[in-house]
Amino acid sequence: MKDSIRCAVFGLGRLGRLHAENLASRIKGAKLEWVIDPMPGVAEKIAAGLGARWSPDPDDAFHDDKVDAVIIATPTSTHCEMIRRAAEAGKHIFVEKPLALTMEETEEAILAVSRHRVICQVGFMRRFDPAYAEAKRQIAAGAIGKPIYFKGVSRDPGAPPEQFIGQSGGMFLDMSIHDYDIARFLLGAEVTSVMASGAILVNDFMARYRDVDQSITWLTFDSGAAGDIEGSRNAFYGYDIRGEVMGTEGSIVIGSLKYHDIRILNFKGSRHDIVPAFPERFKDAYELELAHFVDCLITGETPSVGVEDGKRAPRDRPWRRSSPSRRARKSNWSGSSPRFDR
Amino acid sequence: MKDSIRCAVFGLGRLGRLHAENLASRIKGAKLEWVIDPMPGVAEKIAAGLGARWSPDPDDAFHDDKVDAVIIATPTSTHCEMIRRAAEAGKHIFVEKPLALTMEETEEAILAVSRHRVICQVGFMRRFDPAYAEAKRQIAAGAIGKPIYFKGVSRDPGAPPEQFIGQSGGMFLDMSIHDYDIARFLLGAEVTSVMASGAILVNDFMARYRDVDQSITWLTFDSGAAGDIEGSRNAFYGYDIRGEVMGTEGSIVIGSLKYHDIRILNFKGSRHDIVPAFPERFKDAYELELAHFVDCLITGETPSVGVEDGKRAPRDRPWRRSSPSRRARKSNWSGSSPRFDR
Amino acid sequence: MKDSIRCAVFGLGRLGRLHAENLASRIKGAKLEWVIDPMPGVAEKIAAGLGARWSPDPDDAFHDDKVDAVIIATPTSTHCEMIRRAAEAGKHIFVEKPLALTMEETEEAILAVSRHRVICQVGFMRRFDPAYAEAKRQIAAGAIGKPIYFKGVSRDPGAPPEQFIGQSGGMFLDMSIHDYDIARFLLGAEVTSVMASGAILVNDFMARYRDVDQSITWLTFDSGAAGDIEGSRNAFYGYDIRGEVMGTEGSIVIGSLKYHDIRILNFKGSRHDIVPAFPERFKDAYELELAHFVDCLITGETPSVGVEDGKRAPRDRPWRRSSPSRRARKSNWSGSSPRFDR
Amino acid sequence: MKDSIRCAVFGLGRLGRLHAENLASRIKGAKLEWVIDPMPGVAEKIAAGLGARWSPDPDDAFHDDKVDAVIIATPTSTHCEMIRRAAEAGKHIFVEKPLALTMEETEEAILAVSRHRVICQVGFMRRFDPAYAEAKRQIAAGAIGKPIYFKGVSRDPGAPPEQFIGQSGGMFLDMSIHDYDIARFLLGAEVTSVMASGAILVNDFMARYRDVDQSITWLTFDSGAAGDIEGSRNAFYGYDIRGEVMGTEGSIVIGSLKYHDIRILNFKGSRHDIVPAFPERFKDAYELELAHFVDCLITGETPSVGVEDGKRAPRDRPWRRSSPSRRARKSNWSGSSPRFDR
Repeated sequence: MKDSIRCAVFGLGRLGRLHAENLASRIKGAKLEWVIDPMPGVAEKIAAGLGARWSPDPDDAFHDDKVDAVIIATPTSTHCEMIRRAAEAGKHIFVEKPLALTMEETEEAILAVSRHRVICQVGFMRRFDPAYAEAKRQIAAGAIGKPIYFKGVSRDPGAPPEQFIGQSGGMFLDMSIHDYDIARFLLGAEVTSVMASGAILVNDFMARYRDVDQSITWLTFDSGAAGDIEGSRNAFYGYDIRGEVMGTEGSIVIGSLKYHDIRILNFKGSRHDIVPAFPERFKDAYELELAHFVDCLITGETPSVGVEDGKRAPRDRPWRRSSPSRRARKSNWSGSSPRFDR
Repeated sequence: MKDSIRCAVFGLGRLGRLHAENLASRIKGAKLEWVIDPMPGVAEKIAAGLGARWSPDPDDAFHDDKVDAVIIATPTSTHCEMIRRAAEAGKHIFVEKPLALTMEETEEAILAVSRHRVICQVGFMRRFDPAYAEAKRQIAAGAIGKPIYFKGVSRDPGAPPEQFIGQSGGMFLDMSIHDYDIARFLLGAEVTSVMASGAILVNDFMARYRDVDQSITWLTFDSGAAGDIEGSRNAFYGYDIRGEVMGTEGSIVIGSLKYHDIRILNFKGSRHDIVPAFPERFKDAYELELAHFVDCLITGETPSVGVEDGKRAPRDRPWRRSSPSRRARKSNWSGSSPRFDR
Repeated sequence: MKDSIRCAVFGLGRLGRLHAENLASRIKGAKLEWVIDPMPGVAEKIAAGLGARWSPDPDDAFHDDKVDAVIIATPTSTHCEMIRRAAEAGKHIFVEKPLALTMEETEEAILAVSRHRVICQVGFMRRFDPAYAEAKRQIAAGAIGKPIYFKGVSRDPGAPPEQFIGQSGGMFLDMSIHDYDIARFLLGAEVTSVMASGAILVNDFMARYRDVDQSITWLTFDSGAAGDIEGSRNAFYGYDIRGEVMGTEGSIVIGSLKYHDIRILNFKGSRHDIVPAFPERFKDAYELELAHFVDCLITGETPSVGVEDGKRAPRDRPWRRSSPSRRARKSNWSGSSPRFDR
Repeated sequence: MKDSIRCAVFGLGRLGRLHAENLASRIKGAKLEWVIDPMPGVAEKIAAGLGARWSPDPDDAFHDDKVDAVIIATPTSTHCEMIRRAAEAGKHIFVEKPLALTMEETEEAILAVSRHRVICQVGFMRRFDPAYAEAKRQIAAGAIGKPIYFKGVSRDPGAPPEQFIGQSGGMFLDMSIHDYDIARFLLGAEVTSVMASGAILVNDFMARYRDVDQSITWLTFDSGAAGDIEGSRNAFYGYDIRGEVMGTEGSIVIGSLKYHDIRILNFKGSRHDIVPAFPERFKDAYELELAHFVDCLITGETPSVGVEDGKRAPRDRPWRRSSPSRRARKSNWSGSSPRFDR
């Protein structure tokens, strides 16, 4: 059993920075050794604030024998290569979702992890969110009988930059993936069929990437359960993540919009503010998933969210067709079955 | 058993008008015969809309043999005389709270009612509000064990006109009286001691009437229970009526601020509107109390809120001292015990 | 302009009885003349309580010259014939949704109404629900910018009797029809495409009627908006009706589950009860829609929910295919496009 | 500017243990050196889990030159001596509320702190609670106009052990002190008058300590504002902390009862769990106040909650009379003015 786990964080976007801060000051047993980012100045500045070393080059961490584990928060298109290199260097891996952009890359990453016998946890942080985790406990304790339906809503407070959409893998892979995973987790079942539709309601530029800004997915599960999942980039009021599980004896509703626990009353009404974005909504979850990862490395246990989960969730999504010809702006819904090539 | 009850409404302020409309179109078994108000034009106009007769003179109703019952919604200072005249005319009586301004008038009114054997219901409409009524049922069913504490909040969205304050009897008699009554109702107990304090926070003119715009009352009950009751004219966001009963096995919270059952979400947050005033908050209660009154007259049963309740509630309040010399604006709290002459 | 509207109610199930009671005691200007139901004893008993005449035979009302209007709350399969006969008798018509079981019958009913120049209002009571009506006003006032997405949830607290399912027209026509109508109403737009899927999660007997107990519909609208609508017979906690409209500047959320406005707190948590069924949830709406109907007959105005709306809403639903061969229990979702024959 | 602050925690009750854990693993810049508790085995066990040294004797920490600061979470009766000894040893001090049991001890502690020029922060953690802090920011930003009324509710889910009551200083000093402080903080004003009453509703043993289990305090402030504060040991449903500030243009409501962000729906209704106790309710606040303390020691700034605040809050409370003769069980409210000797 190790005393502490020395970590390197790759990719210092909003999420990578959050992971680095958590490792530096809030995760017991973790030590932040390296922060790595190719953007000039970024890593240096963050390293100074957190008391870590910095570099633009991942190899500096891969070649550092003191480093036990890497946190991969780089663009999805690079995940597969980073996982492979980390595994070859014998580093344990925490990788942001999605595991990879294609099923081929996903399989390649899984193979690298298993061949080099490193531990790999995928960043499905919702499983660690106190609300989702409590829902899971309640379901397991029989609070709603047998679960039969999952309803998920994931709404962003606006579209990401066009540049991000281009390499995101699309709404289903980038966003609904969280609901595909949490549905499996809460229902304790695997997906047997998927249908989906989408539309561009606001962000015309998405047509260039054959992506949508509003979507619905209908799932069925091997337990006989079903579910629907809404994805949206059009919540012009905040970050809105909700879940429901209906069961044969009751239902569980997860999440609310409230941010600060105050209400302001005036002649216009009663108002509370709304969770603005994912770092605020999942503050505890991001800390708890890293704590779990570090704890597993210390104790030698297997993380509860492994590469198989990383593979299942995107596999359950509607993958993109090769020929998107039938898509058209403003009338761009389409029958869902042709959109899958599972 | 009578077929229908013919009614006259005295006083066509906001509440009298509401009673008249309810009698005319929503109370089964009631018939609105007369609307009476001394203000030129008021009764005439309302009568036209509701298909009733009108007059400035209560005697027109008192002398009308077809009239079974009168609804007294005139200023409190006239209640005692109106009750006496109605009783002498053999009319059944529904009278708005408070029953009278002084204990002497209260006793006189009660005497008139009992001597002429008419039925008299007092307008403690909160007892008929679906929320308070359900709370009563839950307490009776043991949902919170033995009730031990009542907490009441009654806030108006601003001060009434100065003219009203002058003849209202003061905040404790005009406003907190509802909480004194509902506390007795929910706890099933009688008041044994009263303390109170108040302050003028906003409306300086109240000093002229030795009234306050913010107050607290502390009550103890013969069951061993206690309670506190806030009164306020300073809720600059709406009409805010709340109640709580704590018990030895749980508590009940009554009422919320929500008016329309919608929420509007935007970048400023989640907003719902707030009940603006008493007609909206107690719409159903005002209808249900009249339905109960009319039903009692038809069936010959005794109303559940009688003159004794009309006497108890104000008796439980801190009555005004004759010498208010110690009151001073802006530092106007005072020890409560000297303020009572029960 | 007429003084009062004399009405006959056909069909005294839960809804017909509610309409009869409202007409008898709460709708200003209405007079309940007849209650009609073929079941022995039913009409007689209700007539006694409400002071109306009764008969098992609709012709008694059709042939009564005093009758101005009929309220049709009989099984859907009889709507078309009842509308035709009412129109021929010159009676104005209030008919429960859905207008008819097939598009042919729908057209026939519309033709009868227009030929005999009677007024016909369809019972889309949600439009009169204070929450939906306020949402409409807020949208019209620009509170959320341009509406772009409708999300509806309609859940029953269990499946109706098998006998009802057989003649209901199926979940989409019987239940989701309310959401199809209210989506049109709130978005101010017409449906351009429909997809749907469903599953049997609990009630196996539904397979016999090619019906489902859980469903999703995905709609697009001619304004560029889209929407999804869930229907469920599996809400083992109460009657759950919710709506949302997302707009380019915010969103509106309609409805909550709360029934009585109290909360009970104990060591198990904070609990409020849930609206049990449609009469409680839409108490005001059922009264207001009849008040609107009667008011239109008195003033000669056209009801805001006419036969065209009765035709639009079911047309927007996925109609049943003739060959349901591909449906199978427990794996019974199916590609949605084959399920429509619009 | 120091790199890190080495801390010793005195008193390993529920709160001391929480402080120790926070210092050990979540407060950036802090290092937990010692945990001290006289109970055999307690310190040793906690020290092992947190990687700190342990002792039953405070002197081991006072004499350790590496120790920069002490956290005093011992019984209130020992605070004054511990502060004096810590100040003499040159250690900075974080002390739990209340600062001391009497005004004499309070002055003595303040004198020791100022003479030895150490920093002393008092544990009014509510100021660091995100909800109260946001309320303060909103008030400062003018969201409610000028604040005119504070309403506080502090309810414990049952009485503490009799042994604790004996040395707690009574409900006003032990519990309402939080509201006295937060009222000053939120209103930005100092107390000018205090009245209070109390009763024993459930816990008869409190009579032995001249304490109550239910109380109300009425405060006025030098800004012209007023307030009422309820204290209770009788919330048999959970830990219930609420605050409101009314202003001339609106109000702010702080806090809700919800613990986990889920709701369970079944035929009994909609239920969410309730915050069980202070460590759960103020988890973030306890971390943030220590982070502030450590940050001040590193940067040399003065903590925002100093000994003066520790003195003000209890001074504003009703101190115990020497002769409690008039108190009697079950009728134990008393006029409040005689209960003060300020």
